[in-house]
Amino acid sequence: MAVGKSVNRIDAVAKVTGRAEYTEDLYRPGMLAAKYFRSNIAHGRVKTIDVEKAKNLKGVEAVFTYEDVPKNKFATAGHPFSLDPGHKDVADRLILTRDIRFMGDEIAIVVAQDEIVASRALQLIEVSYEEYTPLIRPDDILKKDARQIHKGSSNVVGEHRYAIGTDVDEALKAADYVLEGEFETAMVQHCHIENHISYAYMDDLDRIIIISSTQIPHIARRIVGEALNMPLSRIRVIKPFIGGGFGNKQDVVLEPMVAFLTLKLNGRAVQINMSREECMAGTRNRHPFYIKVKTGVMKDGTMVARSMDAISITGAYASHGHAIAAAGGSKQSSLYPRTATRFHARTLYANVPVAGAMRAYGSPQIIYALECATEDAARKIGMDPVEFRLKNIARQGDINLLSGKEILSCGLAECLIKGRAFMDWDKKKKTYEKYKTGPIRRGLGVACLSYASGTYPVCVEIAGARIALNQDGTVHVMVGATEIGQGSDTVVAQMVAQTLGFSYEQVRVVQAQDTDVSPFDTGAYASRQAYVVSNAVFRAATDLKKKILDHAGLMTGKSGSSLDIVNNKIVVAHTNDWVMDMKTLAIDSYYHKERGGQLTAEVSHKTTTNAPVFGCTFVDVEVDIPLCKIKINTIINVHDSGVILNPVQAGGQVHGGVFMGIGAALSEELLIDPDSGHIYNNNLLDYKFPTFMDIPRIHHDFVETFEPTSGYGNKSLGEPPVITPPPAIRNAILDATGVCINVLPMSPHNLFALFKKNGLMDSKGGAHV
Amino acid sequence: MAVGKSVNRIDAVAKVTGRAEYTEDLYRPGMLAAKYFRSNIAHGRVKTIDVEKAKNLKGVEAVFTYEDVPKNKFATAGHPFSLDPGHKDVADRLILTRDIRFMGDEIAIVVAQDEIVASRALQLIEVSYEEYTPLIRPDDILKKDARQIHKGSSNVVGEHRYAIGTDVDEALKAADYVLEGEFETAMVQHCHIENHISYAYMDDLDRIIIISSTQIPHIARRIVGEALNMPLSRIRVIKPFIGGGFGNKQDVVLEPMVAFLTLKLNGRAVQINMSREECMAGTRNRHPFYIKVKTGVMKDGTMVARSMDAISITGAYASHGHAIAAAGGSKQSSLYPRTATRFHARTLYANVPVAGAMRAYGSPQIIYALECATEDAARKIGMDPVEFRLKNIARQGDINLLSGKEILSCGLAECLIKGRAFMDWDKKKKTYEKYKTGPIRRGLGVACLSYASGTYPVCVEIAGARIALNQDGTVHVMVGATEIGQGSDTVVAQMVAQTLGFSYEQVRVVQAQDTDVSPFDTGAYASRQAYVVSNAVFRAATDLKKKILDHAGLMTGKSGSSLDIVNNKIVVAHTNDWVMDMKTLAIDSYYHKERGGQLTAEVSHKTTTNAPVFGCTFVDVEVDIPLCKIKINTIINVHDSGVILNPVQAGGQVHGGVFMGIGAALSEELLIDPDSGHIYNNNLLDYKFPTFMDIPRIHHDFVETFEPTSGYGNKSLGEPPVITPPPAIRNAILDATGVCINVLPMSPHNLFALFKKNGLMDSKGGAHV
Repeated sequence: MAVGKSVNRIDAVAKVTGRAEYTEDLYRPGMLAAKYFRSNIAHGRVKTIDVEKAKNLKGVEAVFTYEDVPKNKFATAGHPFSLDPGHKDVADRLILTRDIRFMGDEIAIVVAQDEIVASRALQLIEVSYEEYTPLIRPDDILKKDARQIHKGSSNVVGEHRYAIGTDVDEALKAADYVLEGEFETAMVQHCHIENHISYAYMDDLDRIIIISSTQIPHIARRIVGEALNMPLSRIRVIKPFIGGGFGNKQDVVLEPMVAFLTLKLNGRAVQINMSREECMAGTRNRHPFYIKVKTGVMKDGTMVARSMDAISITGAYASHGHAIAAAGGSKQSSLYPRTATRFHARTLYANVPVAGAMRAYGSPQIIYALECATEDAARKIGMDPVEFRLKNIARQGDINLLSGKEILSCGLAECLIKGRAFMDWDKKKKTYEKYKTGPIRRGLGVACLSYASGTYPVCVEIAGARIALNQDGTVHVMVGATEIGQGSDTVVAQMVAQTLGFSYEQVRVVQAQDTDVSPFDTGAYASRQAYVVSNAVFRAATDLKKKILDHAGLMTGKSGSSLDIVNNKIVVAHTNDWVMDMKTLAIDSYYHKERGGQLTAEVSHKTTTNAPVFGCTFVDVEVDIPLCKIKINTIINVHDSGVILNPVQAGGQVHGGVFMGIGAALSEELLIDPDSGHIYNNNLLDYKFPTFMDIPRIHHDFVETFEPTSGYGNKSLGEPPVITPPPAIRNAILDATGVCINVLPMSPHNLFALFKKNGLMDSKGGAHV
Repeated sequence: MAVGKSVNRIDAVAKVTGRAEYTEDLYRPGMLAAKYFRSNIAHGRVKTIDVEKAKNLKGVEAVFTYEDVPKNKFATAGHPFSLDPGHKDVADRLILTRDIRFMGDEIAIVVAQDEIVASRALQLIEVSYEEYTPLIRPDDILKKDARQIHKGSSNVVGEHRYAIGTDVDEALKAADYVLEGEFETAMVQHCHIENHISYAYMDDLDRIIIISSTQIPHIARRIVGEALNMPLSRIRVIKPFIGGGFGNKQDVVLEPMVAFLTLKLNGRAVQINMSREECMAGTRNRHPFYIKVKTGVMKDGTMVARSMDAISITGAYASHGHAIAAAGGSKQSSLYPRTATRFHARTLYANVPVAGAMRAYGSPQIIYALECATEDAARKIGMDPVEFRLKNIARQGDINLLSGKEILSCGLAECLIKGRAFMDWDKKKKTYEKYKTGPIRRGLGVACLSYASGTYPVCVEIAGARIALNQDGTVHVMVGATEIGQGSDTVVAQMVAQTLGFSYEQVRVVQAQDTDVSPFDTGAYASRQAYVVSNAVFRAATDLKKKILDHAGLMTGKSGSSLDIVNNKIVVAHTNDWVMDMKTLAIDSYYHKERGGQLTAEVSHKTTTNAPVFGCTFVDVEVDIPLCKIKINTIINVHDSGVILNPVQAGGQVHGGVFMGIGAALSEELLIDPDSGHIYNNNLLDYKFPTFMDIPRIHHDFVETFEPTSGYGNKSLGEPPVITPPPAIRNAILDATGVCINVLPMSPHNLFALFKKNGLMDSKGGAHV
């Protein structure tokens, strides 16, 4: 049984030996380097631009401005195409722009023999602007007479509401207590190790080949077609190994530009290799949210009603548009399905860097607010926060009223119970009573999450797999699902091995996706892949197994259905008596002159379910009041993600997510001047991404349920772990200090203000201890 | 209808713009260069070798000798694996050898930072030999006490006989005349533009990736596995564009070595890029043959019996072994199926460069002898050579007694009639009566051929095709059949278009084969591809068409079988009323949330037929007796290759074949010193490959039959055109001069000797005019 085992990553050796090839390793001789000329204002319009000096610099091949690019607008969001015109992404982009919408907007591009020349040429470009006041604060953006950031379009990119369960106003009226809270989250950045990099060239006069560090090669292909108004079959996108994406490579950031440049430059290879600074402020980031929550609670602990109002800031361009607020707002209904819920959200343009997809896609913001509010409700009625959640959370068999679907697997209560036991919660709660005063205080926190497994029914969920038996009795697997470091190829190999009756070592997944040959799959996002691909892989492997057994039948005169595969060998079903080894069968199928053939199976599968997953974080913190510093003593995430395909890899996902969650909780924030739109810390020195020194030992555990809609009982896991550390830490700080920190990050800077406001510090900033 | 049209080559633009990438274009940074250290004797054994100085040269990474390589012997012939142990290729090779079997045998290899350093290092290797007398002449090789060129193996690599029809001895006895002839053909070389080149590297600690200019990527993968004793799934072979092969890249020449080197050098990329000199004498060439023919003929023109005895020289290693003599000897039975025939052939080792596959694989040698002998028989009874052939050649419905199969399509008689008319044969025959004396004489010649379409039933014939509908309504096709310049990808696209109801422009064939992802196919040889792939393509396209129409049915509520595809559009069957365009259907199949999926079809098909093809050459020559020079006034090849898929491409194949045939007829010969084994002319200056200045305008025509065993009525064409120019020219010289030139090439050197012997020159070499 290959599924459920902690087999080594299929690409482990390639990566630790440095043999895995990333986009930058795939240099082409004679490749040109391109660099963007970016605005140094946040809002305005180019009056004049003079690129002549730049063009004349030795080594410069070309300079293009907004005047030179196609005028058809396109959307960059890595979503599948929608047949519903109402669901299409907002097409508000050109490849280069005359209208400046954030500091760093792309006005022109220089192509030169190398990056040094390109950088020098950038300095020779002369530009003058008509400047407008940057719109950054929601109030300013929403003012009736506010300038339209995109002329002809409202500054509200999207807005939606839903209400489920009993009437929320009535329920709030009837509640014993109604609590209100306001929450604010920061703009954070993915900080994947490998910056955005793409290059393109042409292999004849028609076709563009793009090599790119992307999570979504097939979608990138479509969007390049839209941006350049080219039939999609003229575009080929190849994704090599990827050094992280976390959603930032679920946007089509560089591909249309490199495609445009090679088209203009007679098919020569042109690369854009972004610097960290460009990547941090010129790609995508996580939407800052402003969220108001009302919670109605009964004295017995029943959470009867919840109303949420959210504003999400998408920045200069729509990118994923309102989808992130909508997705984030949908999780309450699977987390607390018996609570009447109303949700209203708006997504706003602003003159700040562009927000897009980032790990957990709106849920970290919404669930931060939700789980702080839940905590406050439990405290209001004096109920233990774990017990309060156990009373209100989803159970198997509940109906998610938003989707109308029954929750077929749910281990959240067990997750809470496991986490509570691990933390020795009840005992520590008592012990920590004595740490509620003085300079160093201690507290415990918890927070719950629910998340989805893919995007259905909002988007199509499609995955493809092709499996071919090799002559040596192994198989090669091609999938469209993209390995981006998360271990996708490894679990695909485990699934194939499991269904075929092969050992994991006998399965090889063809690495790198190539839209010319890889089965279609929309890519790595929405924690969809292991779930969505599982059915395609299961069906293809089942088909191939049947073909193998039928061929064994041809060879032996037995019926294929009387045979089975166990440990790579053909055996008699049930008795497991040896019939032949797989290599013998494979050789016959390939080389017998009359019977057989290359045995392959291919399935393209659409998934029309979307299993919710669950999990929680427990945390034990120490708050240093004078230093406004948080120390995490213990942290654990416990997840129900169905069957765990590979425990070590799954643990890795949880550790990474918790790490990122702690960063967002305590230190990370892309700082924008609210007046000028200037970005203060577009680099890893000033942007306080935690290092290993800042992170405690991370614990994790799983509650394994079996999800019946999945090929192998598995559900999503990639994104959820990032969601709950911030609210759990906030709740633990509240437990320790009595202060609600309703703004992220809970950095010393923000803690100081709130501790002072709440009387823990004196007016000079000294701590009352 | 795409089939039958002279559409432009699918790779035409890529090639004329220089964007098509050949192996040498795919340079990898840091790639090392390897060069062989070759013997400068033809027969012997290394006594001592000292590579220390070479190893110590700056820039040299490694030197390996025969002591360092795996000791398991392997065969290099590009044949599919055979399940029959009696049909396996002769495994007589090691990657490097201590035993020297021809001048240029590979003793050691230097790996260095570049080719210049490697070449310098070669000069520092010191070697001493134990020398043996080279065995080059058949009589010497066959001597009872001759040294075994491969110790433990007979110098006769293979031998076989067959006899079909009535008893040949009796038939000869009963014949009105019995003619005997002895014929000798030369060692010629393929002279493809791109020399052999391969490189390999590793993408983890297990896997070797080989980029190679090969006709047979899937076979190369298997043979590398055999040479290195590695499971085949650890090897990946990628074939980029290829600059010609003609059979010389149907041998696995460099792949095992580059794979071995990268394994030894920690996965670093290592390339071998052969020089022309190495390629001409160190790869493969065409087997020289010595052939004795007896023909029994009746006065009425019936050719009643034929006996052939052939000796084929494979040189230092078996390579394709006896297969070439066997294949060549099998064509008489489809060309003259009503003549009793006996064939005996032996293939001998010799201390000369290795022979292997070359365009038409034994048939140019055997049919040269056959068609000279046929001419002599016609002349003997005073019958017109065309009429004589028309009386004896194959007709549709004849049984090929060797295969036991009926000839289902045969247009040879029409080919002869067309060619005769083109030449104005009867009139010219009379006109030329007056040119049979004097210094300049004129004559007409004809020769016929039959050839096969693939290798069944000797080898398995398998081909695979996968077709995927793209979102823009076009299709991408993957085949294992390898484009090597012959236009294979183009005709595959035509076939797919034809069956799908698409235009040719809507079909893209994924270029380059990659054994990790391309459907299995044994490769480009035996003029098999267009024939063998046709059934796989037809079935896959038919499957995909059904899937497309079924999806259209889902969308429209009609039954899929009531619909059809015409000009890329879904229409109502028979009425052709428009239903929807292909892009609309494709978009729905990809992006509808519940129905459809990526529509693909894949078929791996085994072909268990082998259609014979036919053709003839007519030629009008002028013989300059004093200069011993042949001028071709007119030459035409007329072929029955079934349905002609693409007339312009087919014409290109004929022109190339005739060109090569004229070279073999008149000038080409790899000259080996019969005593020392020294090779005199391993370069394009001294080896007299014809230039365009040497070649007349070439004419061609087709007689289109419909071959029912083929997907599109097509039969083979790639190799046959090369076969008949030499015997046709020989017969025309005979017509002009009365002298039988029974040795190839018919160069001034050989003509001088034979003209003198036949009294056309005086003893001083002056012409009797």
